[in-house]
Amino acid sequence: MRALVLQDGKPQLIDKPRPVPRDDQVLVRMTMAGICNTDLELVRGYMNFAGTLGHELLGVAETGDLRGQRVTCEINFACGKCDWCRRQQPRHCPTRSVLGILEQDGAFADFVVAPRANLHVVPDGVDDLQAVFTEPLAAAFEVLEQVHIQPRDEVVVLGDGKLGLLLAQVIALTGARVLCVGKHDDHLAIARQAGAQTVLFDQWDRTKRDVVIEATGTASGFELAVAATRPGGTVVLKSTVADKASLSLAALVIDEIHVVGSRCGPFAPALRALADGHIDVGAMVGGCFDLSQALDGLDAAAERGALKIVLRA
Amino acid sequence: MRALVLQDGKPQLIDKPRPVPRDDQVLVRMTMAGICNTDLELVRGYMNFAGTLGHELLGVAETGDLRGQRVTCEINFACGKCDWCRRQQPRHCPTRSVLGILEQDGAFADFVVAPRANLHVVPDGVDDLQAVFTEPLAAAFEVLEQVHIQPRDEVVVLGDGKLGLLLAQVIALTGARVLCVGKHDDHLAIARQAGAQTVLFDQWDRTKRDVVIEATGTASGFELAVAATRPGGTVVLKSTVADKASLSLAALVIDEIHVVGSRCGPFAPALRALADGHIDVGAMVGGCFDLSQALDGLDAAAERGALKIVLRA
Repeated sequence: MRALVLQDGKPQLIDKPRPVPRDDQVLVRMTMAGICNTDLELVRGYMNFAGTLGHELLGVAETGDLRGQRVTCEINFACGKCDWCRRQQPRHCPTRSVLGILEQDGAFADFVVAPRANLHVVPDGVDDLQAVFTEPLAAAFEVLEQVHIQPRDEVVVLGDGKLGLLLAQVIALTGARVLCVGKHDDHLAIARQAGAQTVLFDQWDRTKRDVVIEATGTASGFELAVAATRPGGTVVLKSTVADKASLSLAALVIDEIHVVGSRCGPFAPALRALADGHIDVGAMVGGCFDLSQALDGLDAAAERGALKIVLRA
Repeated sequence: MRALVLQDGKPQLIDKPRPVPRDDQVLVRMTMAGICNTDLELVRGYMNFAGTLGHELLGVAETGDLRGQRVTCEINFACGKCDWCRRQQPRHCPTRSVLGILEQDGAFADFVVAPRANLHVVPDGVDDLQAVFTEPLAAAFEVLEQVHIQPRDEVVVLGDGKLGLLLAQVIALTGARVLCVGKHDDHLAIARQAGAQTVLFDQWDRTKRDVVIEATGTASGFELAVAATRPGGTVVLKSTVADKASLSLAALVIDEIHVVGSRCGPFAPALRALADGHIDVGAMVGGCFDLSQALDGLDAAAERGALKIVLRA
């Protein structure tokens, strides 16, 4: 089968054997897989990953009780036995592998194996190009798991990349006033469509708000986010970047600011929001590439201002 | 009257006129005032403060309805009219002055003026040397205002300075298991007396715990605290230091750690804890100096391992 692997530090399209599922696993035939900024970071050396890339999977189950059904896949493959797993926190299982990120071959291949427990059936009303956004949309919903955003809160989403736009849409559902700050007016138009206010970064007045969600994908975004948060307010960190950030601790202490690191989220609410039509990601597709053109897809995803690039099998 | 002022960047004991209270203020005759690490930071240039130092005040009201009563004084002097004040958050009033820290003459003087609203009567059963700890003890209680520490949590207090020891005592009241990590065995003995476990910094195994409270007074304590926090756990920042800290954002994001900046706290619970005997700060007094020897008191407070130095009028 075809697979886009990171090997000797370089992304390469190779032919490799189809994986064989263990008893607790399912073989999934990949239909679509989204390219994420994290994939580009991995190519740059983040996490020292080697193997098949890709963690935004939509496919069809080929084995087990889900055979023939469309599925998406939670990316943290947990042990199922440790304290974390028993506490229903498998995303923090210390011995987990992570699809296409940590010791686990990923979604940019014709076939993928995944634990049965990680698969979610896609509701009939959700088409493939919407369903392939389930994983990043779940990451946006994670903010609502962690932070109680109240309907009268004023929220800034810092960044109008793919994750920033999903965040703006999800937060707008809470009734809170959302201001999406970005650098691309065509991206900001997507946030406006979902009811968010928008402003170009250069014109942003930096008024302090209740909650600031940092999704710029840069280390420098953190200090910016802290400066735009009211006393007692909350900064949510969504950017996964390898760089270190510097910040004044006095700013956090004097204004008693809360900082919340935020990573992967729950799939069920994301699929419900897509099925109910509360979230529409149609405008966020930047292009589709056949898996055989996966390297071109990676290049397209790395272009400044690229929206979601999707690989198809 | 006598006053220890910071003037031209240097602490000096001078004679200056007794302050005159406005209608909404009370004249307080200082009985005792504690020296805090923040005072030492101010002497080093933090906040560019100029004026009378001191923010841990115990005194006797000389005017108004409290005349003749022992009082302690909340340090944030708020406008009483803005959104923050109306939301009962005067400690974050943007136009506040702060006793002995920001545009407000402080407690190291024979007389101090303070708003009536900031004064708390000291219960009869609390002696002066306990009551003078009300302000820093309130700062320790602030952690319980901000973070729900559960009885089964495992908590680390990083630092065995004056604030660290108050934190260890307050957190131990919650039923949570507290480990105080420090560098002075005689300080750690005070934490043990309150029921905390203790370990010298060099022998600490750095097992990840639910909540880590950073009270080392150093910028480097932050990264240490993050590394000792379990996924989904909470770091509380209590150190006010001017230095910038560097940290890996990926650590916060991957482990979804919460960081909570924490400053001044509520006086009423602190006074209740002293009155009920739940907190005993007697062992934390490192020495008493008459106000006329205030400069010697500052020197004593700056010595490595100093406990609370108290000035008396």
